[in-house]
Amino acid sequence: MCHTPLMLPLKCNYSLSSSSFLSFQFKIGLCQLSVTSDKDKNIAHARTAIQDAAAKGAKLILLPEIWNSPYSNDSFPVYAEDIDAGGDASPSTAMLSELSSLLKITIVGGSIPERSGDRLYNTCCVFGTDGKLKAKHRKIHLFDIDIPGKITFIESLTLTAGDTPTIVDTEVGRIGIGICYDIRFPELAMIYAARGAHLLCYPGAFNMTTGPLHWELLQRARATDNQLYVATCSPARDTTGGYVAWGHSTLVGPFGEVLATTEHEETTIIAEIDYSILEQRRTNLPVTKQRRGDLYQLVDLQRLNSN
Amino acid sequence: MCHTPLMLPLKCNYSLSSSSFLSFQFKIGLCQLSVTSDKDKNIAHARTAIQDAAAKGAKLILLPEIWNSPYSNDSFPVYAEDIDAGGDASPSTAMLSELSSLLKITIVGGSIPERSGDRLYNTCCVFGTDGKLKAKHRKIHLFDIDIPGKITFIESLTLTAGDTPTIVDTEVGRIGIGICYDIRFPELAMIYAARGAHLLCYPGAFNMTTGPLHWELLQRARATDNQLYVATCSPARDTTGGYVAWGHSTLVGPFGEVLATTEHEETTIIAEIDYSILEQRRTNLPVTKQRRGDLYQLVDLQRLNSN
Repeated sequence: MCHTPLMLPLKCNYSLSSSSFLSFQFKIGLCQLSVTSDKDKNIAHARTAIQDAAAKGAKLILLPEIWNSPYSNDSFPVYAEDIDAGGDASPSTAMLSELSSLLKITIVGGSIPERSGDRLYNTCCVFGTDGKLKAKHRKIHLFDIDIPGKITFIESLTLTAGDTPTIVDTEVGRIGIGICYDIRFPELAMIYAARGAHLLCYPGAFNMTTGPLHWELLQRARATDNQLYVATCSPARDTTGGYVAWGHSTLVGPFGEVLATTEHEETTIIAEIDYSILEQRRTNLPVTKQRRGDLYQLVDLQRLNSN
Repeated sequence: MCHTPLMLPLKCNYSLSSSSFLSFQFKIGLCQLSVTSDKDKNIAHARTAIQDAAAKGAKLILLPEIWNSPYSNDSFPVYAEDIDAGGDASPSTAMLSELSSLLKITIVGGSIPERSGDRLYNTCCVFGTDGKLKAKHRKIHLFDIDIPGKITFIESLTLTAGDTPTIVDTEVGRIGIGICYDIRFPELAMIYAARGAHLLCYPGAFNMTTGPLHWELLQRARATDNQLYVATCSPARDTTGGYVAWGHSTLVGPFGEVLATTEHEETTIIAEIDYSILEQRRTNLPVTKQRRGDLYQLVDLQRLNSN
């Protein structure tokens, strides 16, 4: 039932990225950090949380969206760092690089405002166990929404959208990255699954309106439809801030089951990921093989153009 | 942000099918029927339920998956009807046609086993208010799953899969049809949304394993991602049967909110649908316009080939 027209790369043809991960187990740490208006304090605070999570055995640590700055269009230009210049131009990512190497862990570094030339991005950096920057994801779908009387935010007033999906091979598997609003677009998760992702990481700061409506739902949907793990990490809630985050950082398994979650206070979740479950779920419900490539195909344009 | 390569029809370019439905409100009836091994009784029983729902004001009535027959590979050939021949060759659909005309309602007739030549299908018939068969959806994705010790079912042992998506303009809006396992494939719902659906109807008999795991989740995900209404209708639970249905027929709104649902006993849900909410939700969260057609595109091959 997996038809293959010649013209298009076919969604059906995906497989686990590497058999070496098929029975891999490890602990993930989701650091739901309190974020203040003091960048140095935010960096020091994240450092401590990462050290604590690593001490508890986490081999992969995920930070929240915009963890070094308040979440506001006014703050983004002020707190932005030049990640490519590095060193003093980016103290937030310098800390992540230092710790990933020192602690021999992989860090999916939430996101920070990035300055590049005259543009600003909402950017997630992934550091490997050698401290090197393995990948940089610039939020692809900017958060421009308007629910009158509830939540209005126009990220595109200050930020530029990234122009590429980001999937990265790490020592803890193949990880697809999205930032917050990116999770609303099922196509991105489907592209990552087709490229062999084991896990999707979404740093995200949903709010008090969309959080209760959709935060857990979207994570569970992406995990279930694509039969992979989904991890999210939010800032802790600060009701005195201009933008009040929902919290509820969560790890979801490949059947859409919530494996670990929390409320809105600052905390670190340590939870177990077991990739052998992926193959089991994909055998139970072989939806990938059952897709109807004769009726629909999701085209991954970057992949198409690179072939 | 909605880039348009020339080569492919673009997901971004969708709009509501018809402005005449933009402020349309009506009642839907979801008849969660008990199903027995007596076909005549099942037909008489469905007739009564439809009449009752129409008397309560339902202008659209949805029946369960396989409502005229037990749900088993042994039963499908025995209970199958030749829908195209009609009349005495298909008493189940003859009843639906008669009632839709008599009561001036639209019926999305759940599904029945269909015989066509030497093949069997799991088929949903849609009747308009004039009693005419408007569309026939043959389940596209057959239910072949194996969760050892929980649920194993191989529909493809007896059934043939349909070969086309089914979307139909009715007096109560543009409706996309899927049957049960079809709901697991996000692409089908996305195709329907791109073709301007207001509402997706999924007759479905999830089971006691996948029901609690995924039934509500998948409905809410399809509704939220595509910003449309989703209605489902299951048979009532019969714990003495070979296949035990989860029940929980449900209506979900375009923000993924459960508007009406039930447990597993026989009942009819009457609930209100208001299409003006669709435009409101799509303005609140304009995800369709925010899709990244430069990065991914879902190709609807039937539509592509017809252009």
